[in-house]
Amino acid sequence: MTNHAKETAAEAGFYRSDSRAVDQLRPLTLTPGFVRTAEGSVLISLGHTRVLCNATIENGVPSWLRNSGRGWVTAEYAMLPRSTVTRTPRESERGKIGGRTHEIQRLIGRSLRSVVDMQALGERTVILDCDVIQADGGTRTAAISGACVALALALNALVKAGALVKSPLRQLVAATSVGIVGGTSLLDLCYEEDSQAEVDMNVVMAADGGLVETQATAERGTYSRAQLAQLLDLAEGGLKTIFAAQRAILA
Amino acid sequence: MTNHAKETAAEAGFYRSDSRAVDQLRPLTLTPGFVRTAEGSVLISLGHTRVLCNATIENGVPSWLRNSGRGWVTAEYAMLPRSTVTRTPRESERGKIGGRTHEIQRLIGRSLRSVVDMQALGERTVILDCDVIQADGGTRTAAISGACVALALALNALVKAGALVKSPLRQLVAATSVGIVGGTSLLDLCYEEDSQAEVDMNVVMAADGGLVETQATAERGTYSRAQLAQLLDLAEGGLKTIFAAQRAILA
Amino acid sequence: MTNHAKETAAEAGFYRSDSRAVDQLRPLTLTPGFVRTAEGSVLISLGHTRVLCNATIENGVPSWLRNSGRGWVTAEYAMLPRSTVTRTPRESERGKIGGRTHEIQRLIGRSLRSVVDMQALGERTVILDCDVIQADGGTRTAAISGACVALALALNALVKAGALVKSPLRQLVAATSVGIVGGTSLLDLCYEEDSQAEVDMNVVMAADGGLVETQATAERGTYSRAQLAQLLDLAEGGLKTIFAAQRAILA
Amino acid sequence: MTNHAKETAAEAGFYRSDSRAVDQLRPLTLTPGFVRTAEGSVLISLGHTRVLCNATIENGVPSWLRNSGRGWVTAEYAMLPRSTVTRTPRESERGKIGGRTHEIQRLIGRSLRSVVDMQALGERTVILDCDVIQADGGTRTAAISGACVALALALNALVKAGALVKSPLRQLVAATSVGIVGGTSLLDLCYEEDSQAEVDMNVVMAADGGLVETQATAERGTYSRAQLAQLLDLAEGGLKTIFAAQRAILA
Amino acid sequence: MTNHAKETAAEAGFYRSDSRAVDQLRPLTLTPGFVRTAEGSVLISLGHTRVLCNATIENGVPSWLRNSGRGWVTAEYAMLPRSTVTRTPRESERGKIGGRTHEIQRLIGRSLRSVVDMQALGERTVILDCDVIQADGGTRTAAISGACVALALALNALVKAGALVKSPLRQLVAATSVGIVGGTSLLDLCYEEDSQAEVDMNVVMAADGGLVETQATAERGTYSRAQLAQLLDLAEGGLKTIFAAQRAILA
Amino acid sequence: MTNHAKETAAEAGFYRSDSRAVDQLRPLTLTPGFVRTAEGSVLISLGHTRVLCNATIENGVPSWLRNSGRGWVTAEYAMLPRSTVTRTPRESERGKIGGRTHEIQRLIGRSLRSVVDMQALGERTVILDCDVIQADGGTRTAAISGACVALALALNALVKAGALVKSPLRQLVAATSVGIVGGTSLLDLCYEEDSQAEVDMNVVMAADGGLVETQATAERGTYSRAQLAQLLDLAEGGLKTIFAAQRAILA
Repeated sequence: MTNHAKETAAEAGFYRSDSRAVDQLRPLTLTPGFVRTAEGSVLISLGHTRVLCNATIENGVPSWLRNSGRGWVTAEYAMLPRSTVTRTPRESERGKIGGRTHEIQRLIGRSLRSVVDMQALGERTVILDCDVIQADGGTRTAAISGACVALALALNALVKAGALVKSPLRQLVAATSVGIVGGTSLLDLCYEEDSQAEVDMNVVMAADGGLVETQATAERGTYSRAQLAQLLDLAEGGLKTIFAAQRAILA
Repeated sequence: MTNHAKETAAEAGFYRSDSRAVDQLRPLTLTPGFVRTAEGSVLISLGHTRVLCNATIENGVPSWLRNSGRGWVTAEYAMLPRSTVTRTPRESERGKIGGRTHEIQRLIGRSLRSVVDMQALGERTVILDCDVIQADGGTRTAAISGACVALALALNALVKAGALVKSPLRQLVAATSVGIVGGTSLLDLCYEEDSQAEVDMNVVMAADGGLVETQATAERGTYSRAQLAQLLDLAEGGLKTIFAAQRAILA
Repeated sequence: MTNHAKETAAEAGFYRSDSRAVDQLRPLTLTPGFVRTAEGSVLISLGHTRVLCNATIENGVPSWLRNSGRGWVTAEYAMLPRSTVTRTPRESERGKIGGRTHEIQRLIGRSLRSVVDMQALGERTVILDCDVIQADGGTRTAAISGACVALALALNALVKAGALVKSPLRQLVAATSVGIVGGTSLLDLCYEEDSQAEVDMNVVMAADGGLVETQATAERGTYSRAQLAQLLDLAEGGLKTIFAAQRAILA
Repeated sequence: MTNHAKETAAEAGFYRSDSRAVDQLRPLTLTPGFVRTAEGSVLISLGHTRVLCNATIENGVPSWLRNSGRGWVTAEYAMLPRSTVTRTPRESERGKIGGRTHEIQRLIGRSLRSVVDMQALGERTVILDCDVIQADGGTRTAAISGACVALALALNALVKAGALVKSPLRQLVAATSVGIVGGTSLLDLCYEEDSQAEVDMNVVMAADGGLVETQATAERGTYSRAQLAQLLDLAEGGLKTIFAAQRAILA
Repeated sequence: MTNHAKETAAEAGFYRSDSRAVDQLRPLTLTPGFVRTAEGSVLISLGHTRVLCNATIENGVPSWLRNSGRGWVTAEYAMLPRSTVTRTPRESERGKIGGRTHEIQRLIGRSLRSVVDMQALGERTVILDCDVIQADGGTRTAAISGACVALALALNALVKAGALVKSPLRQLVAATSVGIVGGTSLLDLCYEEDSQAEVDMNVVMAADGGLVETQATAERGTYSRAQLAQLLDLAEGGLKTIFAAQRAILA
Repeated sequence: MTNHAKETAAEAGFYRSDSRAVDQLRPLTLTPGFVRTAEGSVLISLGHTRVLCNATIENGVPSWLRNSGRGWVTAEYAMLPRSTVTRTPRESERGKIGGRTHEIQRLIGRSLRSVVDMQALGERTVILDCDVIQADGGTRTAAISGACVALALALNALVKAGALVKSPLRQLVAATSVGIVGGTSLLDLCYEEDSQAEVDMNVVMAADGGLVETQATAERGTYSRAQLAQLLDLAEGGLKTIFAAQRAILA
């Protein structure tokens, strides 16, 4: 717990429902090879949040990239109906993808594309399927952190098979949520915290510390630039832990 | 291995890729409470086939049952895109449910309804979500066997909570696939066997031995009534094992 | 009426609303050339059930069969809105095909494919459109029996036109429904009987007596293997009549 | 054949493929009670064009008419896939109603509404299902002429049942197509003529001679007001025959 | 005001809400180049009705015209949600195009195709997007008159660019609505008049006076051929004004 | 031009295609009452970007808010097909809303909700329709700035009509895009700049300076916290101009 975090929490008399420190990540595990059917497969668990991330590599690219010599990386995200405490109807039954799903899978896709050398990938498409088995907040950021490992495993397999000389993954990418609840800035919000947050932020970062995407939304009122900076501090701390876990699997 | 099965296999010089006897089920495990978000949750593993079965109990019934005092049980079935060796596109992306999915979820629903006392359930709807995590043949029958346990757990919870005096589940129901491959009748086909089968059959049975649904399809040529009887013999043997596993979880 | 059938009905004091014997088919007529626009066209009437079966032969096959030298046979099934006593909304208006329709057209397609030599058909696709003009039970099995004749007519026309040396239809296929109502096994259920049935079964058989598809569903309670055998006996009797009617048209 | 028509045809040296006079309708038959499941049912045959028109009367009206005391009349139109020489894919499979279908069913609905006293009908909805069994030109106008009889039969049945004191049908309505082919004005175009027409016109008329809808479209070039008048003359002649046929059925 | 019009109005003691004569068009302006992004762009204002008409010329034609050497012209029509006094939900949100939209865009497409030499256009497709900014009656006819100018501008640009030797537009086309309100025939109905009309008519005419499409619908009761002629007289008068405005822009 | 901005641009030898300073907004105009059919209507022009923002106020709220006493604010966004240099197909024709549209209309909705007192609004729904007439970058942020004025006008009208005592709009909200192009931070990117940007950021701010939403996306490589701060500086400058323009209209 950083000094800043400790003080803020102390002032606010703030205690998290699972007794975590304000700058503490929930228990994180990455299970590689969760299914044997996919080229790269990882189950990421972050507290009760569990997302299955499977990477598929297909030959060919969307039409607008044909004959460009460049590859493409895209993502699909879905929640199993009972990943949530109240059942969420299937989007296949409704016949269309909802706005939240679209927003999330576009974020995952952009995040992963930021660390792949498309020229080195060649005219291949990587699809990252992120299916939420159990949801307790932070599913989209967990999906990014897990999908990055699934992607790395699938690309490594392609190198091992001799199809690529070296992996087109330039560096790792990971993501975390941060937020302000009751005036206190917190790392890695669980669902209960998320639903009470005044500010909700997702931070996607590359392993070299460069920012890939930051999205901070005021759910109630507004926020200041000082608060934005504080949230970024917290996120950077959490992301170090996630990068370490990713590296441990890929070592 | 029954005498009949042994002889048939011997004659045909038939060996299964995983060295199973013709009347032997793949290793079966039922993991209750796989997710904590659902009222009843079971992961069923049958060899490499893994299906997550979650039961949801909602108040209210479809419009045609309103004010009838009777409940309803229905099922939804889906495959995760990488449950298969070649990626299967999501039905949510295609915007519609395919014919195979429709056929399967109707079978699961009918099978479960056959063992529930709808009057005792009252005006509640049970939805059984069966999501295939990994597919290696027999997903629809595994879904029925797993969903029955998820349903039992959810109904038991309702009894424990005092909402019902006793469980409306009259008896257990389970299902297995059988088939004829290269002239030999086999219990519990894996994907490789299934794709070569001349006859493919699904048998749904109640715990008292009564048949709930039998579907036998000739994939190549036709089959005789004698072959149909032989397949039913094999299925009955396998179903005893499955009922025992279900009872062990619910004990 | 077989002895067995007579005794069963006698014991049960069972009388059918249209005074038929338990093993008696409803009046069956096959009208070839019902429309002049289709390559093969048959209206099948079975009591009040009337299904128009039209066969279309198109050059080319679905993508997964291209350059295989093999053909494909598929079916589509629909009910006119007022084929039913209460109007059934159009699936075109709802924007999607329902589960029952999917299940039925898959059954019709499988049944017809079982008797066609796809190599001899060559890279052609046969589409069997089965449209229910009036529904009184047994529409899916009537559709199979009628579609087989429409298919035969269309293939014969191709032979006559010199496009094929001989018809790729290896043998005829037909189907009937059987069921148990009030404990009595009955052949060819009308709608009223079907809606009260404890067990509902569809039997698809080739002309040589080989079984193509059998589907027996318990609508209330369960059924025994003895009952299954009895239903198959009844079905075999009815199917002889249907095959005779098909042959009469094609002679 | 009117003097005018004879002269025009003579001048042009025009002969119709079926040897009809330019002002002659194709053979017309109306078969009431074609299905027994609908409140009103008529098969209209006009040469090779055959349209099944079924009327459904339901209690209740669309939301914008609730509590107005007024009824509603609407129509749905569809072609069976093999009503056409080349198979027309089903709109249910495509998942949406096409523009031509929309245009036609709106025309049928407007035409029938023009002759119904909505106040007298009360809060009921009449749906006229017009399904083309075989198409050889003029299906939309045949549908109007047939649907009017189906509507009359259904309303008469309501009167007979005591639900209405008298039929809310104020008068009959009928329709025909006319057009200009090779410079000659023709009554009741068959498909072959329709596909070569320079001008294609649909005329909907009430039995008292009042016009309900006239739509004249130039398919090639334009047309003059004199030609429009000539087409209306031809249409009036044909419509007399159609009204007589309708009256014969309803007598 | 023609003598006829004056008399009719006088007899009926008829006054239009905006004090127009019965044969007077609302103020008409055509604003070329309303957007700079389209090849041809015109905003047409007719009283409060405002429709933005943009022409797009794309290489290639629909599949059924490929290698025919001929071009294609088509139209799309939509209303902005608040073009109407009560908000009209978007068809993109509903997931399908409604019947009225289909009917209108088919009319616009046919009207424009009637004046284009498809051989001279070559294998190009012109799409005319007609988007209603504000609706006060007559949007479909305004769309035709505006789209014709957008089409002319886009084709002229193609000539100027050297892609075509001369414009394939053979002549101008324009449209107007006419109708009968309270027994009086009126030119160019505004929404208030349109909603009270007994007869509603759209007249599409080419610049040489030839008729392209006439559609007259009885909204209440029926109409006579004399009334039809009177409406055509009124339309011809209004169309002269519209053609003059079109020519002024294109000069 | 701030000192910082001047220096950065000078160092980079950076010139914008329209000669703007790096911290200069494009010409901004807000046209209130652009359509007379909507309760609140504003056309916002920002350089060549033009978005029509119309506010609708309807009684009632979505089901999850019923009987809460609280209101709801939502947005819909669409591009006219020829708002873009290459025609963009309509989402109504494709039958579904795309991911980008979903993402944008969710952003607009959240932004506007942040400044509305839902309790004071009562059980009413405000829909903000944002239709892009011409697109040259920054359409989503222009939509927010324009929609805020349309919303204010519609709420003021409700106050004037006596339906509300005072406007539930707590303060104004506005948005701008900023980005990094060729290493230089720029305010208000046009399309050409946007398509070359390394970082693209949207900043939504309330009139009191509080942040509502910040989204910064690396399109190529990553960005640092220092760059993020610089972009926020630029955005704050531009937003002052936009707030002034909003206030001028509402005064």
